[in-house]
Amino acid sequence: MPQQDAQPFPSPPRPHARDVGSAASGSATRLEHSLLKALHRLAGDPPLNLLLWDGFAAGPAKARFAIEILDRAALFQLLRSPTISFGELFSAGRLRVHGDLSDMLVEIYRHLERARRSWPAWLRRLWRDRARRGANLADARHNIHRHYDLGNDFYRQWLDRAAMQYTCAYFESPDISLEQAQLAKLEHVCRKLRLQPGQQVIEAGCGWGGLARYMAQHHGVRVRAFNISREQLAWAREQAVREGLADRVEFIEDDYRNITGECDAFVSIGMLEHVGPDNYPALAGVIGRTLKADGIGLIHTIGRNRPGPVNAWIEKRIFPGGYVPSIGELMGLFEDGGLSVLDVENLRLHYAQTLEHWQQRYLAVLDRVRADYDDDFARAWALYLAGSRAAFIAGNMQLFQVVFAPAGSNQVPHSRLHLYRSPAAPPDTALARS
Amino acid sequence: MPQQDAQPFPSPPRPHARDVGSAASGSATRLEHSLLKALHRLAGDPPLNLLLWDGFAAGPAKARFAIEILDRAALFQLLRSPTISFGELFSAGRLRVHGDLSDMLVEIYRHLERARRSWPAWLRRLWRDRARRGANLADARHNIHRHYDLGNDFYRQWLDRAAMQYTCAYFESPDISLEQAQLAKLEHVCRKLRLQPGQQVIEAGCGWGGLARYMAQHHGVRVRAFNISREQLAWAREQAVREGLADRVEFIEDDYRNITGECDAFVSIGMLEHVGPDNYPALAGVIGRTLKADGIGLIHTIGRNRPGPVNAWIEKRIFPGGYVPSIGELMGLFEDGGLSVLDVENLRLHYAQTLEHWQQRYLAVLDRVRADYDDDFARAWALYLAGSRAAFIAGNMQLFQVVFAPAGSNQVPHSRLHLYRSPAAPPDTALARS
Repeated sequence: MPQQDAQPFPSPPRPHARDVGSAASGSATRLEHSLLKALHRLAGDPPLNLLLWDGFAAGPAKARFAIEILDRAALFQLLRSPTISFGELFSAGRLRVHGDLSDMLVEIYRHLERARRSWPAWLRRLWRDRARRGANLADARHNIHRHYDLGNDFYRQWLDRAAMQYTCAYFESPDISLEQAQLAKLEHVCRKLRLQPGQQVIEAGCGWGGLARYMAQHHGVRVRAFNISREQLAWAREQAVREGLADRVEFIEDDYRNITGECDAFVSIGMLEHVGPDNYPALAGVIGRTLKADGIGLIHTIGRNRPGPVNAWIEKRIFPGGYVPSIGELMGLFEDGGLSVLDVENLRLHYAQTLEHWQQRYLAVLDRVRADYDDDFARAWALYLAGSRAAFIAGNMQLFQVVFAPAGSNQVPHSRLHLYRSPAAPPDTALARS
Repeated sequence: MPQQDAQPFPSPPRPHARDVGSAASGSATRLEHSLLKALHRLAGDPPLNLLLWDGFAAGPAKARFAIEILDRAALFQLLRSPTISFGELFSAGRLRVHGDLSDMLVEIYRHLERARRSWPAWLRRLWRDRARRGANLADARHNIHRHYDLGNDFYRQWLDRAAMQYTCAYFESPDISLEQAQLAKLEHVCRKLRLQPGQQVIEAGCGWGGLARYMAQHHGVRVRAFNISREQLAWAREQAVREGLADRVEFIEDDYRNITGECDAFVSIGMLEHVGPDNYPALAGVIGRTLKADGIGLIHTIGRNRPGPVNAWIEKRIFPGGYVPSIGELMGLFEDGGLSVLDVENLRLHYAQTLEHWQQRYLAVLDRVRADYDDDFARAWALYLAGSRAAFIAGNMQLFQVVFAPAGSNQVPHSRLHLYRSPAAPPDTALARS
């Protein structure tokens, strides 16, 4: 669990801290006080205080959390577009959170979920997230560059040390380490694909190549792994050479739409979030022309219980072009692709736990992030990790692993028993050696 | 496996049996010969012969199967509306099949799947199945009465003797008996629901009550089970009294739309096929108002890889009002219902195996069915069982088990390991005692 004192931004809760004050904005007006109370009410009366620069507070008498708005312009930005402005203001240090950021966001998400239903139509329009719908080839390169080419060193500081996985881990037992859980995820995926030595695998969106190398090393397959992040690929190739796997794993710098060849297994972990529903038919087409008639595929993606846009701030600052499909939209990809869905597993709370580990590690290296980038960047990523964890806890986000096969294939697993015959996670001692 | 000689209708293949002849329709014309060849071609040139009453054959020189059309009117009916007429003519004995009926239908389904794409628009319109969309309350009672009140004795002759299950079994190991596999299905479902003693369960569409009694007896829960088939309920209640479970299982003659009360687990096995997509919101509403905030639900239903109508003959003769949802349509039910999908398992080939058992047992009691009903009925049900088995083998039909929870619940299973810790099927010896 992240230590409270490892979190640099939130300070202890100060509900009704009427002594906050800020010379810059002067005393708040009665209108501003009313607007603050309205904002709290429209958010569904969450158990937190909203504080103004003059110490005025809206919210319950006792609360575990407070959001302190430090200047007049910040209040109006928040009223105008709360979703995007909360992130912008937090990153800029113009809005301070007291209490645990993730826990507070869980409360906000849950209260908003209910409160939203009673908003008038004009407010729903004003405050809605704008839905972006995926990325064309040029956008995709730009988007992926912005997020994944931040620097391998940046991610290496807080991702697992076993396989450098920037996707949901599988906590086969709740108390295993992040390293064990990420390796368990890789093994779980390999078992779902029923990999056999000598098979050919295509991976779309391979990150730093952790899965590709794991499949080659532990399941004796040959892998062609695609990615458009140059930084990630350089690291992935280096690592493959170091591990003596370069003859079995080929890392290819290209877009998923350009994948050719044939495979026994098609796998894509955490790429679909960047694809966008307009491009699902293209992805289904790629699967259709590469996956053998008796092959098996797996897509691992963040999802939602019902359709909706990505949080506007996340889309703007963290994942440009990102889109999170609902379970129904996700199934549409397989319907259109002439594929048969064999197995869907929802690992939502595993992602909350994964994010808790990342958050803890990230906060431990925050000073270095500040030095390498700047305060705003450091705060933005702290919010992104805390907010994502909160979204998985509150149920705004799901994590789906979908196993599928060409519709005509009868070479499908008889049951799922083979996934559970032995532990997927290595023992802790095995990891110490690696 | 059903013995070839246990199948009374199909005789050994007689490709190019130019000596068949039939005085009734006289010699076929050249136009009729051309139409027969066109029919074979439009069906995608399947590996079977089409034979006319005068011995004329269309199709390959060597084939494992033949369909013999015994009179002129039959040929024109088949050309006009092949889907519905094949069933009608087969039932009436005006069309004979040589070779294994199921195996032949698998070939037909697979070839049609491809051939259909090249049909001209007018033909696609002419030959399409009409999509029925579910059943209102009055229709539902009529439809269910027609299928399920055929008589308990009828079903008892060919369903399993352990739990009288008229839904897909779970062949945990491929070689277990139908009785073991049906009990394994019940246990698998109970584990997915994580039943705990003392919990309250609601079952929508309980058939002969096998699951309801199993849950009460083996998992110590209290069950309220709903059904609108009076015949089934009478049997279910009798059986509950005999097993000393009447105080824990309440069988209620009412429609799913009228279910009230509260439950820890909501389960519905093989009812959704009768509900129709227009009524999915109503079913989702029932789940929403009965399932506790920390409860779990399961729906087990036949499904499809993409939307499409039910086979017209099946809809007319076997399942009036039936509708088989695509995986996407099925997910729509959960999206609209504010539910979160936790787990989807596709047991398609388990249904093919279940149907093989039913088919074998049915054919073994065929003489009694003929005596109790008539030849047409006996043939219709033989075709229905053979055609259903073929549909699951060819991949036209899927079998989905979906586990879900209210969207806000974090009381969800950590993983699926608990489903596989011990065998779900009882040993054969245990069954002998029951």
